[in-house]
Amino acid sequence: MLIKFYIKPRKGVLDPQGRAVAENLRSLGFENVKDVKVGKYIEVYVNETNKEKAIEEAKEMAKKAIVNDIIEDYEFEIVED
Amino acid sequence: MLIKFYIKPRKGVLDPQGRAVAENLRSLGFENVKDVKVGKYIEVYVNETNKEKAIEEAKEMAKKAIVNDIIEDYEFEIVED
Repeated sequence: MLIKFYIKPRKGVLDPQGRAVAENLRSLGFENVKDVKVGKYIEVYVNETNKEKAIEEAKEMAKKAIVNDIIEDYEFEIVED
Repeated sequence: MLIKFYIKPRKGVLDPQGRAVAENLRSLGFENVKDVKVGKYIEVYVNETNKEKAIEEAKEMAKKAIVNDIIEDYEFEIVED
């Protein structure tokens, strides 16, 4: 199975990368850009055939190693092989 | 509208972050981890109501500012307000 994690800065947390990308886009002529958030996209391939187990594992991985809960929000998705 | 970009290292491109995360997960007991890819997740909020236009803009943004085509693969998705 493949676990896809989508991580972004929590609301209210400074996101200097997002600000830089927004300014860059506007300077390139994309004037309708309102806001940009820059986060992480992580794919974890696991030897696991049970989807329920993969979901539990994904939550544990997020908590222990993937997500900094204080400054980041995340979602994940399980893709079966 | 919201444009969500999912960016990851192209196949064959070195991904030291991915390797580090994989090793860390295994050392934490997630022994069934086969491979990890670390990429970027970028949200771009635009003042645009026409979905077709947003799609065209997303492709232009990717090409000009968001994605390094030589080493990165990407997908995007448009979310309507």
